Amino acid sequence: MRITAPVLEVLSWYDGERPGVKANLSRLLMHGITGGTGRLLILPVDQGFEHGPAASFAPNPAGYDPRYHFELAIDAEVSALAAPLGFLTAGADRYAGAVPLILKANNANGLGSVKDEAITATVRDALELGCSAIGYTIYPGSDRQYDMFEEVRAGAAEAKANGLVVVIWAYPRGGALSHEGETAVDVVAYGAQIAAQLGAHIIKVKPPAAHIETAQAQLACQAAGYDFARLEARVAHVLEAAFAGRRLVVFSGGPAKDVEAVYAEVSAIAAGGGHGSIVGRNTFQRPRDEALAMLGRIAAIHIGASATRSAS
Amino acid sequence: MRITAPVLEVLSWYDGERPGVKANLSRLLMHGITGGTGRLLILPVDQGFEHGPAASFAPNPAGYDPRYHFELAIDAEVSALAAPLGFLTAGADRYAGAVPLILKANNANGLGSVKDEAITATVRDALELGCSAIGYTIYPGSDRQYDMFEEVRAGAAEAKANGLVVVIWAYPRGGALSHEGETAVDVVAYGAQIAAQLGAHIIKVKPPAAHIETAQAQLACQAAGYDFARLEARVAHVLEAAFAGRRLVVFSGGPAKDVEAVYAEVSAIAAGGGHGSIVGRNTFQRPRDEALAMLGRIAAIHIGASATRSAS
Amino acid sequence: MRITAPVLEVLSWYDGERPGVKANLSRLLMHGITGGTGRLLILPVDQGFEHGPAASFAPNPAGYDPRYHFELAIDAEVSALAAPLGFLTAGADRYAGAVPLILKANNANGLGSVKDEAITATVRDALELGCSAIGYTIYPGSDRQYDMFEEVRAGAAEAKANGLVVVIWAYPRGGALSHEGETAVDVVAYGAQIAAQLGAHIIKVKPPAAHIETAQAQLACQAAGYDFARLEARVAHVLEAAFAGRRLVVFSGGPAKDVEAVYAEVSAIAAGGGHGSIVGRNTFQRPRDEALAMLGRIAAIHIGASATRSAS
Amino acid sequence: MRITAPVLEVLSWYDGERPGVKANLSRLLMHGITGGTGRLLILPVDQGFEHGPAASFAPNPAGYDPRYHFELAIDAEVSALAAPLGFLTAGADRYAGAVPLILKANNANGLGSVKDEAITATVRDALELGCSAIGYTIYPGSDRQYDMFEEVRAGAAEAKANGLVVVIWAYPRGGALSHEGETAVDVVAYGAQIAAQLGAHIIKVKPPAAHIETAQAQLACQAAGYDFARLEARVAHVLEAAFAGRRLVVFSGGPAKDVEAVYAEVSAIAAGGGHGSIVGRNTFQRPRDEALAMLGRIAAIHIGASATRSAS
Amino acid sequence: MRITAPVLEVLSWYDGERPGVKANLSRLLMHGITGGTGRLLILPVDQGFEHGPAASFAPNPAGYDPRYHFELAIDAEVSALAAPLGFLTAGADRYAGAVPLILKANNANGLGSVKDEAITATVRDALELGCSAIGYTIYPGSDRQYDMFEEVRAGAAEAKANGLVVVIWAYPRGGALSHEGETAVDVVAYGAQIAAQLGAHIIKVKPPAAHIETAQAQLACQAAGYDFARLEARVAHVLEAAFAGRRLVVFSGGPAKDVEAVYAEVSAIAAGGGHGSIVGRNTFQRPRDEALAMLGRIAAIHIGASATRSAS
Repeated sequence: MRITAPVLEVLSWYDGERPGVKANLSRLLMHGITGGTGRLLILPVDQGFEHGPAASFAPNPAGYDPRYHFELAIDAEVSALAAPLGFLTAGADRYAGAVPLILKANNANGLGSVKDEAITATVRDALELGCSAIGYTIYPGSDRQYDMFEEVRAGAAEAKANGLVVVIWAYPRGGALSHEGETAVDVVAYGAQIAAQLGAHIIKVKPPAAHIETAQAQLACQAAGYDFARLEARVAHVLEAAFAGRRLVVFSGGPAKDVEAVYAEVSAIAAGGGHGSIVGRNTFQRPRDEALAMLGRIAAIHIGASATRSAS
Repeated sequence: MRITAPVLEVLSWYDGERPGVKANLSRLLMHGITGGTGRLLILPVDQGFEHGPAASFAPNPAGYDPRYHFELAIDAEVSALAAPLGFLTAGADRYAGAVPLILKANNANGLGSVKDEAITATVRDALELGCSAIGYTIYPGSDRQYDMFEEVRAGAAEAKANGLVVVIWAYPRGGALSHEGETAVDVVAYGAQIAAQLGAHIIKVKPPAAHIETAQAQLACQAAGYDFARLEARVAHVLEAAFAGRRLVVFSGGPAKDVEAVYAEVSAIAAGGGHGSIVGRNTFQRPRDEALAMLGRIAAIHIGASATRSAS
Repeated sequence: MRITAPVLEVLSWYDGERPGVKANLSRLLMHGITGGTGRLLILPVDQGFEHGPAASFAPNPAGYDPRYHFELAIDAEVSALAAPLGFLTAGADRYAGAVPLILKANNANGLGSVKDEAITATVRDALELGCSAIGYTIYPGSDRQYDMFEEVRAGAAEAKANGLVVVIWAYPRGGALSHEGETAVDVVAYGAQIAAQLGAHIIKVKPPAAHIETAQAQLACQAAGYDFARLEARVAHVLEAAFAGRRLVVFSGGPAKDVEAVYAEVSAIAAGGGHGSIVGRNTFQRPRDEALAMLGRIAAIHIGASATRSAS
Repeated sequence: MRITAPVLEVLSWYDGERPGVKANLSRLLMHGITGGTGRLLILPVDQGFEHGPAASFAPNPAGYDPRYHFELAIDAEVSALAAPLGFLTAGADRYAGAVPLILKANNANGLGSVKDEAITATVRDALELGCSAIGYTIYPGSDRQYDMFEEVRAGAAEAKANGLVVVIWAYPRGGALSHEGETAVDVVAYGAQIAAQLGAHIIKVKPPAAHIETAQAQLACQAAGYDFARLEARVAHVLEAAFAGRRLVVFSGGPAKDVEAVYAEVSAIAAGGGHGSIVGRNTFQRPRDEALAMLGRIAAIHIGASATRSAS
Repeated sequence: MRITAPVLEVLSWYDGERPGVKANLSRLLMHGITGGTGRLLILPVDQGFEHGPAASFAPNPAGYDPRYHFELAIDAEVSALAAPLGFLTAGADRYAGAVPLILKANNANGLGSVKDEAITATVRDALELGCSAIGYTIYPGSDRQYDMFEEVRAGAAEAKANGLVVVIWAYPRGGALSHEGETAVDVVAYGAQIAAQLGAHIIKVKPPAAHIETAQAQLACQAAGYDFARLEARVAHVLEAAFAGRRLVVFSGGPAKDVEAVYAEVSAIAAGGGHGSIVGRNTFQRPRDEALAMLGRIAAIHIGASATRSAS
């Protein structure tokens, strides 16, 4: 398929990046059910590492098997599958070339108390496994945040020099932030800004809540007349914070929830200009048929929003 | 001897690994009394470093001599002998080629209070000593866990690039974990998952207890109807957590105990699908004849379970 | 599109290669008009460097512009475009992701008298430009052949370690070879064998002539009852020499010639089991419409042969 | 335009630096509206990272877009635009060569509680982006100050070896300093001295307040008869502290304030011998026309002061 | 001065290059008397090394002094001064920032008989000296050509990674080439093509003569109806060979000659679409006033041609 106009538009935001980065970006944007629309649908499966195997896979035990997720990603025709080293190693050969891969290169787990992540994979690993992108989590606000930024900086620079796309999971936490503040609209937007400043090509954030955490943002938003009552408006603000919408921002689904709640949230994200969804537990913790149906429906919402935008 | 069907089946789990890794893996799986069954029986002798010489070898003073263990491993026809640098150096020449070797490349001791390990050997050492594998311990949960993961990542990547098998000893401890929690079934499974995500080919864990440590796992397991009353079921869960059983998981014997208790435990491990045993103190702290008998009996249990499985 | 059965069959020939190599191989095999058939149609444009600009592009002056060839490759839906560094640099950004690229990393020219090539690009260049493969020419027989083999070996090893496909242009010449001998069937087969031995994933050769150059091959072929009267049989022998047909071998078109002669040659190549065509001057020296028609026709021949084989 | 006498005078202060550093310094000093006067007018846009996106850009939402600031810098004909990696990457290609760039290579944010900065970019990044200078913030007094000095030292040394100008943002804070003390005249001067000692070519400080923080400075200034009532005198003291005025010192504007207050402050800075202004929020938080007018007026003040000095 | 439309047009040819390369390219194109027209006027002074001091400078002994040439370049407002390491070192500090510099990084001399050049400077030297570009000579056709290409490849890759422009002096000679053939139109075009394929941003060639050296080109040009009687047409062909005119090609002046002959030649070059002149001996071997007049006149011819082209 020819590179479509919406994808060429997205690629134009990344002028100055190496051609290889753009080629991999176009690979993600042209693949699968959302291919060509400028929207992304990503299946992330790092929960076994981050939350533990039973908490992640007991609801649908087929998910203990990495191959299950490769096949789910292929059958649902998502844009990409994102996972840690060991997981990707367990399927990259068998399913070579079948779905774009994002190597999640740092990881934390739920057993410790230090807010940090370990670097668990390298750019060389990503190349050997045939990945199109490499991903890192940052915790803006935490006491280890600057070390994390420096690790991500080094990895991102090497990734770009080798033509890989860089994805940053921006999860503010720790420091002066309240628990509620972790998903406050100003804080999520701040996380997106930091990810963009660190050079992310794709930014993953959580859907922002209406709460405003910091006094500075409270004042500025009030003066500017922001109304954050609706998720759509909050998403639009996060997009603003990502270089006026010229960085791809995808939104996570969070803990498993009611089906209609998922669709309502995705609709608001799409209406606010979000570039896609990255949904793990809400899909793979359901039976395969339901997961496929849900991914299809989420994709349809994003595709519809993309078409509306292009038409307007 | 031809590579047997059970071993070919195991090797197929590691598609995408370099041929040299598979060759060394088949070396471990085809050697000794369990050779060809897809099961492993490993003799680990790092206790002198980890617990101190008297605590380890006073019950059977012949064990102060590394050569004793080489000869025990050879005579018992175990799959491999695993030990630290100095120990292997003391026998690798004299017994060159007689038994596959696993270089245990990081070590802790009982004198300090920091939950961490030192890197005590390199991939180059392993190659120079003629080892088939290199092994690392991780302490998921501890405050140093992320540093440990990063050290293991670096070592494992180099090992694989040189065709060596990577073994990870997954011992959760520290952080928010209670002492009892260190062997809780959810925590042992979590440790196995992390080891698999870090790219281990073989994972060593402790036999899991019925206790569930984390609230998340408690909820998920209850909802899914897990019954962890029997060790067999707990072992099966740990296997699930190791990529749906497609990573080799071997179980340690723990502190020396009653002979029949050892066999009962091994039988449950084998029945749960465990891929073998890694038994040190329970054997080498007994007189040589008893140790040989015990290793033979443990091997027989695993061989029997393997045959049953193949037949079914 | 799902990876098709013929492509999975081809990928199975390369077991033991890193997953990234297979992913890039599947990219070449799944792209464009021959996508999914297990056959390749490659547009090579290194003639400006190798033969000079006027000799290459004067017949169709649009071809002086690298962008012309990118667009020809895209519009003809070939499997890949192969060209030197400067040429790819002139279009890799503008056409990022639109067609798989092969970086031709060594080059000779027609001005000198030494039979050798210069390394003109690196694996890093290939990654920065978003290429799926890197290509090298070897001149088996020439006085510099062993230096060339060593350069190719180094480049190929680095390429594979970074997940790139390796293409070798095997052009025997120099040394004891007569000019006619350069395309003798035994010599072309010998060149294919050497390329396979050097680790090529894809081998490019010239259509072999009926002439047998070496006395040894003459005797052996006679004894074995080979009949090289027809091109189809000669192609089949070259395939045999490429690891019993388990390395992809594509055949060049040579100097521009009569249209029907081109198709007849391609039909014989396809009938003999050749995996595709790599046709430059015969296409780009013709007007664009004729070139598109010709590439379409060549593709159709290969697709037809592939279907016939699968059906049988 | 020929290098002017005031610029040659400034360059003479940096004898012993590599020619490339001087060439880049002259680029900054010869460019834009203040070009040739020996004065600098710099537009810094790191507030999105340092203070958060809403706090920085909500007052003038056009500023969420990095391109807005590039165009503001070009249209206002400032000496240089200073910003973090991600921001510069978003415009360096599109506006290549249009305005000198300063890569702000370390950054903090407002979410955490640790007074430190992360290294977010390298000298290689600065060269790839076509920057003339690289900039670092130091926090003299903070608990992490020595680590920061060492990071800056390493970056500065590499920058100079590659012909780049080094800018240091000297912001004393933390340790024994009171909040008021951070802008005390003795402390600002001390910060300038440390920046000069670390090898800065250009030093950025805040306008110093009349407060004297340290007892030692209090005594010494009293004895020497300093009168710090007027900003002009305080600026003159900061200049003294910057190697007797032979290091370029530019003054920030701080939080947005009343227009006339800005001009009065700049006039005092110019009268005190300050080498220019680095004004972000006071300009880009206003509508574009007002920002352009303000930058023009600030430039005019500095140009006027420069002419007066030259004439005297 | 704003980047002009003709310069933006030229920069657009180099999409995919790093922003720093474009910034330095715009520096060359925006500087001096031809600044903004898309044309270049370069003063090369490597003749002392290449031809010897007396042969180069005796006609105008002021030229023995490197400073003379810096001042000539500055006063004539050329686009850039190109010279070897020692020469640039002798003026880069004194004239820092006054004129863009091109470090000529390999050199030959007239004393030896081997057609080769020595690498005499590095990318690091260029950065330390504040250069905008680095230059290399290649001798396509010579027995050492492939070694030269490999040296240039390595230098060019490093230069681009550091944001420097790469200039290649393409001087075919040696091998099968006759002396007349060195400036044959097909050979000059071939040299330009090779320089472009090696990744040159700016290519320097000699004005091509009407002679056609190679049989292949003879046939192709005849068939295509080329008429090479006039220099203008020959220049146009060389431009074609430089990626359809999308690489900057500048023409040397050759040995000193009659003033009007110089202007006539430059007029033909400009009419044929040449992007500028690189004139050494014809200027600096004349008295300073005559040199300045000549450089002004050459610039005027190129500026006029540029204006005519833009208008049409």
